[in-house]
Parts: sequence; C-alpha cells; structure tokens
Amino acid sequence: MKAAKWFARKDVRVVDAPEPPSPPEGWVKLKVLACGICGSDLHEYLAGPIFIPMTAHPLTGHSGEVILGHEFSGQVVELGPGVTNVKVGDRVAPDACQYCGKCYFCKRNQYNLCESLAFTGLMTSGAFAEYVNVPAYTLYKLPDSVSNEAGALMEPLAVGIHAIRQAPVLQGDSVVVVGAGTIGLVTLAAARAAGASMVFSVEKARARKEFARKLGATAVFDPSEVDVIAEVKKATGGRGADVSIECIGHKATAPLAIDLARKGGTVVIVGIFEEPSEYNFFNITATEKKIIGSLAYAGEFDTAIHLVADGRINVEPLVTGRIKLDDIVKKGFEELVNRKEENIKILVTP
Amino acid sequence: MKAAKWFARKDVRVVDAPEPPSPPEGWVKLKVLACGICGSDLHEYLAGPIFIPMTAHPLTGHSGEVILGHEFSGQVVELGPGVTNVKVGDRVAPDACQYCGKCYFCKRNQYNLCESLAFTGLMTSGAFAEYVNVPAYTLYKLPDSVSNEAGALMEPLAVGIHAIRQAPVLQGDSVVVVGAGTIGLVTLAAARAAGASMVFSVEKARARKEFARKLGATAVFDPSEVDVIAEVKKATGGRGADVSIECIGHKATAPLAIDLARKGGTVVIVGIFEEPSEYNFFNITATEKKIIGSLAYAGEFDTAIHLVADGRINVEPLVTGRIKLDDIVKKGFEELVNRKEENIKILVTP
Repeated sequence: MKAAKWFARKDVRVVDAPEPPSPPEGWVKLKVLACGICGSDLHEYLAGPIFIPMTAHPLTGHSGEVILGHEFSGQVVELGPGVTNVKVGDRVAPDACQYCGKCYFCKRNQYNLCESLAFTGLMTSGAFAEYVNVPAYTLYKLPDSVSNEAGALMEPLAVGIHAIRQAPVLQGDSVVVVGAGTIGLVTLAAARAAGASMVFSVEKARARKEFARKLGATAVFDPSEVDVIAEVKKATGGRGADVSIECIGHKATAPLAIDLARKGGTVVIVGIFEEPSEYNFFNITATEKKIIGSLAYAGEFDTAIHLVADGRINVEPLVTGRIKLDDIVKKGFEELVNRKEENIKILVTP
Repeated sequence: MKAAKWFARKDVRVVDAPEPPSPPEGWVKLKVLACGICGSDLHEYLAGPIFIPMTAHPLTGHSGEVILGHEFSGQVVELGPGVTNVKVGDRVAPDACQYCGKCYFCKRNQYNLCESLAFTGLMTSGAFAEYVNVPAYTLYKLPDSVSNEAGALMEPLAVGIHAIRQAPVLQGDSVVVVGAGTIGLVTLAAARAAGASMVFSVEKARARKEFARKLGATAVFDPSEVDVIAEVKKATGGRGADVSIECIGHKATAPLAIDLARKGGTVVIVGIFEEPSEYNFFNITATEKKIIGSLAYAGEFDTAIHLVADGRINVEPLVTGRIKLDDIVKKGFEELVNRKEENIKILVTP
C-alpha cells in the first residue's frame, strides 16, 4: 500500500509499504478516510526526530522510520480477536494516545500522562497510508452527521476541549485565546461552546484573524496594531480575562498570556515551546493566578463528536487544503512552510 | 507613646508618637501585646519604600513615614461606635488586611486581592507601638489556650494555611516545602495538620534544617549536599511530590519547586521574587502541572487559631528572640541581617 514515511529530517517519502496484517487481539484494522497534517508532523519533517523515538519505545517497541499521521477518520475493515466495541463498516475517529493502562496516571484516568504514552503516527505506524492498525480502545464511532473530513478534525478539537476543561472555563467566563492556528481556533470554538461570555483572539496574521472571526471570536486583537492587554482589560471591566489560553508556544507569548488573565484568573498553557522565557514569578504570587498545562486530551473525543454532530461547533471552515497522499511533501509540508499563515488544516486522502 | 517608625531606607527610629485617638465608627483601639518582625518589615528597613505608599493610599489615604508592625496580638481597650464583635478586655489577633468590601474581589471573598488593599503597618499605622487602631472586622478573638506570643504568630501561620488551601493539600498528599524560614516552617506545619502523608523540607541553613525537623518534617534535603529532586522522587515512587510549595523567592527556586512536583501535581508560589527566572513553559504543557500563587490569606485566621488552640500546631518553637521596642533596630533588624539563618521570629513587646 501507499504510505508517507518519515526517514529523517527533511526526508519524508511516499513509499510502497506492506499493508498491516490481520489485527492482533484487541486491535482493529482501519481503512483511512482522511488524515490532517498536524504541526507536530511538520516539526518532525523540518527538525525531527523530536517525538519519534530512536530507541525502542517502551510501549510499542517502535523506533526510527515511521508512517506519520494521527489526526484521522477511518472505516473498520477487520477486527482482531475479542473486539466488541466496533464492527466492520463503522466509521470512527481514533484517539491518538496508546497507553499502558497500568501506571499511576492511567489508573487516575490521566492516560495523556501515561509513563509509556505512545502517539499513533509517531511512536507506532500512523494514518498517512491506505490502512492502519490501532487498538480498539482508541476508537470513537462517528454518527452520520459527522463527515469523514470533520471526523479527521476530532483529534485537534479534543485538544481544544481538553484545554477548556483544564481551566475549566465556566459559563459566563471571559476567555482570551493567544494564537489562531488550528489549536487556537478549535480552542476558541470550544470556549464558545462551553458558554464563555466573550472569547477574544490574539493574532497577527491577516488570514488567521479572519478564521478567528469565522469561528465566533467576540473580537480579534492584533498585537502589531493595538495594546492587547489594554484592549482585553477594557472589555472586561478593567480586570483582564477570567481564562487565558496560550496556543502558540513562543517565549514571549507565555508571559503575555499570563498578563492577559485577571487577578485570580487561570492561564492554560497548550503551546509547545522551544525557548525559555524570562519570567518573574512574583507576578504569580501577587495576583494568585493559576497556570496550568494542557497536553493532548484524556477522554474528550466523545465531547468533540457530540459538539460537531449537533452543530454547536463547525470545524469544516478549518480545512484549507485537500490533497492526495502522493502530494503530501510538495502540497502538504512545503505548502505549510511557504504559506504558513494562509493555511490551517490540510487533509490528506490516500 | 513609644513607636518604631519608618522614615526612609535604613532609617527606622523609636520615637514618641501621639497615642491613637478614640476609635471611629467600626474601629477598635488595641493595646499591643506582642508583635513579630516580618521579612517585609526587614525589606522596608533595608530597601524601602517597597510596599509603603509614597502617594496617598486609595483606601487609607496614608503615605510615607509609618509605624511598622503587622504580626501581632493585642488587647481591646476601647470600642468605636457600632462595634459588637469584640468587647473591652478581649485578647485578639488582627488580620493585617484592610479592604474596601465593594470591589469585584472583595465580593468574591478574595479580599487579599482587593483593588485597594491596605496592609496594617505599611499602608496605615502598625503595631510596633504601645497602641494601635484597627478596623473591628479584622479581629479574631484568642482563646485562653493561645498565648500572647502565639497570638502574634497567627498572621504568618494564616499565610501558611492559605498556601495549603490554595493547592489544596488533600489528605495523604506528599508535600515538599522549599525554604525553612518563618513562612516555610508554618507552611510545613500546616501541611502536616492538613493530613499530608509526607512533608519534605528543602533548606541549606543548618539552624533552619533543625527547625524543620522540630516542626515535623519527614525529611530535610539540603541542596548543597544531595540532589533534592532525586531524593523527593525516590521518596514518592519515582514521581515527585503531589504538592510543592515555594517559600523563598529566589529566581532559581521557582523552577526547582516546579521540578519537585509530579506530573499533574500542584506548585504553590508564596515567595516574593526580586529577579526574573529563566523558564521554559513547555515543562508545564508536557506535565500538566498547575502553578498557583498564594498571597497573604483570605479568611484563614479562624483556622490558624483553632489549630494552635487544640495543639495540632505548635508555633512557639519559632520564637527565637524576645526584645523590647527600644531595641528594635539593633536587636531586631540588625540582628536579622547579621544572623539571618539562626533567627526565625523575633517578637517585640512595647
């Protein structure tokens, strides 16, 4: 079968790979319907290996070259022994987290913190391929009202919903989301769906500001045009937002996100940072702000599917490109590098 | 009356000040029984004005030279009109926070974040004096089982209890407290009283390590002798502490405190930092740690008095010096500068 495989930095190739065998006990074989290119896929392409293990992964045993792709929808084509939660023909959205189920964190239902967490498409074969095998416990059935394309967006939407639940955003809260890339946008939509009174977006890129408006931002503040802290204060009775969510991962935007929250407010850190920030922790003592990390998701797929199925969140505007697997490097990775700001989600079909 | 007044940096003098007049409506005149020297008093002496306002304070109107002292016990000698919560002769511990009662934060019972918060002894006359007037709403009655000296320690103990409640520390949690000065030690004692399974102290100074043991530390780790992160991990199943509390305020100890917490754990920041830290916020994303500030207290005096009254916390070992008001500069401030590590709490009596 055709598959896009990471071999090394700047070396992703579409190759002829063996089709996955009949799935083992507790696993399922899926025909891939659509798979989005994630920022982390792009990072592996440009600067990897980052998350790709170069020695045997403790859970999957995998190391080195790998078929990428973890934001996807699929159709069940074969069940391994003992699988009862799905049947052949079901359309599903798979949670990308594979986990041990036995460690301290798994026992607390925080499988995203599992001591041997394995991400599909990084620590085991992914979905930039015609077929992929995954554990049955990762699967969530898609109802008819959720399209194959929307199904491929359940994974990033689950990230946004997890961030909202980490805060948590309560009905009536004012929320500011720093960054309007895919994660910033789904987080914005999730905040709206959670009953936030106002959701502000902080973004510089013209195209992304438009997306933020389309996803329901109360206002979009561009730090190259206005003092965003002053604007958010002005809109929130002089105090700042109840909840501020960092979705960029730049050393300057973590302190900014903290400054955007009111005294006693909550700041959720979702970004993946390369560089350290300079930060005076006295600002936290003096304001009693709460800073909390949010990593992937832990059980938010059902919620994501419900919110899209009943129309409360519309993820389809996020799809800015539809390409074939053969074109993944030129029209996928390179397109995302060259026209970073115009693109949100590029979907790949086999 | 005699009073120790801050005039300028390095200029605190015991002077003859006018005795406070009969208290106005809602206020009470107290005879000071004992008053501790706080780290913030020392900071004002060495490097002030820090918290002392140099223009009229929005709540009290006070600016400039001020009678210091806010950790104290007193006896009610005169009631202003309308005061019903205490009577003449009552021994009391006063909460040092004076607040507007009308702002967003006061309405949410977060008076420590009041938009016009005034600290007794900084933004209005304090208790390094024979008498002081304070609002009646700040007063908590001391039962017979709480001595005048212990009564003067209710204020720092309330700071420790607030930090524990901010986390919150739950029964059975493992806790690490970074720093064993007054606040570190009362926080350690409060963690114990909250049902923590283990409470580790991180401290370098020999004398303070002894105090930590005396206050019930499970173990004391000295970063100049051992790898404290490795030691805390070893003692907590390889994970790190459920709750880590920073009580020093040094740029290196905030990141240390965060590293001492387990994935998904909580870090409370109590220290007052002068310098920024270098910190990569990816550590928060990847671990879902929660960092939360803790400023003074908001309603914890009752709890402090209960815990001392019934013997669950013994604050008296913290008193390392008892001096007269006349000696406050030489035997108080200068003693704390010269023998920083040997001293915890020096109590001043008029």
